[in-house]
Amino acid sequence: METVRAELGDRSYNILIGSNILNDIGDSIKSFGLSPKIAIVSNPTVYPLYGRAVSDSLKKVGFDVLTVTIPDGEEYKDLLWLEHIYNVLLKAKLDRSSLLVALGGGVIGDITGFAASTYMRGISYIQVPTTLLAQVDSSVGGKTGVNHKLGKNMIGTFWQPRLVWIDVETLKTLPKREFLAGIAEVIKYGVIWDEELFNFLENERSKILALDSGSMLHIIKRSCEIKAEVVSKDERESGLRSVLNFGHTIGHAVETATEYRKFLHGEAIAIGMCLEAELSGKLKFISIDKVQRIKSLIESYGLPSKMPEDIDKQHVLSSMELDKKAVAGELRFILPEKIGKVRIHKGISGKMIGELLQS
Amino acid sequence: METVRAELGDRSYNILIGSNILNDIGDSIKSFGLSPKIAIVSNPTVYPLYGRAVSDSLKKVGFDVLTVTIPDGEEYKDLLWLEHIYNVLLKAKLDRSSLLVALGGGVIGDITGFAASTYMRGISYIQVPTTLLAQVDSSVGGKTGVNHKLGKNMIGTFWQPRLVWIDVETLKTLPKREFLAGIAEVIKYGVIWDEELFNFLENERSKILALDSGSMLHIIKRSCEIKAEVVSKDERESGLRSVLNFGHTIGHAVETATEYRKFLHGEAIAIGMCLEAELSGKLKFISIDKVQRIKSLIESYGLPSKMPEDIDKQHVLSSMELDKKAVAGELRFILPEKIGKVRIHKGISGKMIGELLQS
Repeated sequence: METVRAELGDRSYNILIGSNILNDIGDSIKSFGLSPKIAIVSNPTVYPLYGRAVSDSLKKVGFDVLTVTIPDGEEYKDLLWLEHIYNVLLKAKLDRSSLLVALGGGVIGDITGFAASTYMRGISYIQVPTTLLAQVDSSVGGKTGVNHKLGKNMIGTFWQPRLVWIDVETLKTLPKREFLAGIAEVIKYGVIWDEELFNFLENERSKILALDSGSMLHIIKRSCEIKAEVVSKDERESGLRSVLNFGHTIGHAVETATEYRKFLHGEAIAIGMCLEAELSGKLKFISIDKVQRIKSLIESYGLPSKMPEDIDKQHVLSSMELDKKAVAGELRFILPEKIGKVRIHKGISGKMIGELLQS
Repeated sequence: METVRAELGDRSYNILIGSNILNDIGDSIKSFGLSPKIAIVSNPTVYPLYGRAVSDSLKKVGFDVLTVTIPDGEEYKDLLWLEHIYNVLLKAKLDRSSLLVALGGGVIGDITGFAASTYMRGISYIQVPTTLLAQVDSSVGGKTGVNHKLGKNMIGTFWQPRLVWIDVETLKTLPKREFLAGIAEVIKYGVIWDEELFNFLENERSKILALDSGSMLHIIKRSCEIKAEVVSKDERESGLRSVLNFGHTIGHAVETATEYRKFLHGEAIAIGMCLEAELSGKLKFISIDKVQRIKSLIESYGLPSKMPEDIDKQHVLSSMELDKKAVAGELRFILPEKIGKVRIHKGISGKMIGELLQS
């Protein structure tokens, strides 16, 4: 079992990564000073696979375990299902010392974290991510939230988990498409922070695609280390943390314009990374061969690299302007300068982005 | 103009108290580093009285001012109206550096603070309280939230305002009943913290009831000082802050059992203070003559001191058990030991409370 520490003062926590470790969750939270009542928040896809193991592990150490499920999918990460979670927690009389367990992918993690941050003005939660995307990205760093029809994650908080518990074995039941979408975020860490990780993704592709345990542990641990390092330096995204948004300015807008239906988050981010790398190339911040290397790696994992023909490009552009990352109406982009390093670039006009989307 | 400082590290802020000072708000926030867009959240009762003054003051220094109104009343402090606020802010494209202005009483302050804490993972807000209750209590300390049908303020956050701006002139348009309900919270500060304030409320009753400016400035400033001192020592209510809940354990339950319709918050708290003082007397923590002195002061301001005959007492008790202040199913009470001092008391049985409610 590997441990990565997210250093955030009195909100610091451990990220545990291992194989077949779901049975040990109960022991790890015994010392948290919790009320007996715990709620697992999950969905009907994940709960039948891993719910019992997590629940038994908690019951074994004396907790009274309640389960809340919400439907599986990004489109259910909204205020309506958030209210459903509140209703269940209140009916079951969970109190200020109760704990929520987010068992599932990014949607479950985000909405559970948000519920935890706002239930009785904030209770504890732990992340048990079961998708690669959640394991390498969304479960670490304390960003919580739900979507609004006018944009993704528009309603949310910063609220750190008490613990992140990653069992790589859960990836064996993950659909291939979702696994590859998670790889998109790992590629992102390579581009923004770590050329060695990028090389590893290029060189060990066949082992990674075969879910080789050693390779998976390596890329997940390295991703969590990078995420934890960035977040510890800038928890509330006032500066550095925005480097994690490489590919996301365009990617989020693609998701909004396609109503979260056409692409998985990682797929949209793959398109966003390719276009933002191209933008960086056009601005001469990075050489064209490196742009090509980024696009080739993305394509080699079967991820999309182009804006779909039939997308409403005006909608993509207007979504970008409403994005949280826009400051005073100005678009900000994270643009690579080489493999392993990015810069934050402001003041790109809507016109230039319009042309990029058309090309 | 008087200034009280709420010391909360990098979340510290000033509480300004004065007469006819609404025109100066704009100048006071110029240096906050905000986006041009500001939204005033208010209600149809308060906005026609003071909206123009606040709005003009903000426009004068260059802000683009938007107004959101929600209906007037505790019953509208809910998830539905919160969503309405989000919708308006998103349509108007307020960004992460925008500011909300809460112009109104406690309901407006609480829901606006909650919207600010969750809009794009947290934006700035200022409090411009126009009721006595909000001026002496809810506008200071960063408790935000909305109600749920299963309990008051069940959904919320701790999110400090950037500034609290109190114009005592607004009390001249406040209905007498609401003014007296605010006095209940001032009496609370006297009981829990400051015998001199309690004496002042006894001795200067006629001046206070006549809204004498000097007297009002004194009791508001002293209340804000006490609130700020307590909150600065225990922002998230892990211990000391709970002394502010004197009268609230029973008071909140009375509000819930009467569906927020029969009593104003301060009136319910007045009943709660009388019953909790009696409980303290029964437990021999305080002498009966002091219990009587507390009840007499409350009654002398025309506030209710008894549980209504027709209330569903079982409902009151079950609401108390769901209260956020209950820890692991155990009821906690703040009980006076003398005028100006309270103790936190745990482990009182539901049975004992049941008897108290029946008596």
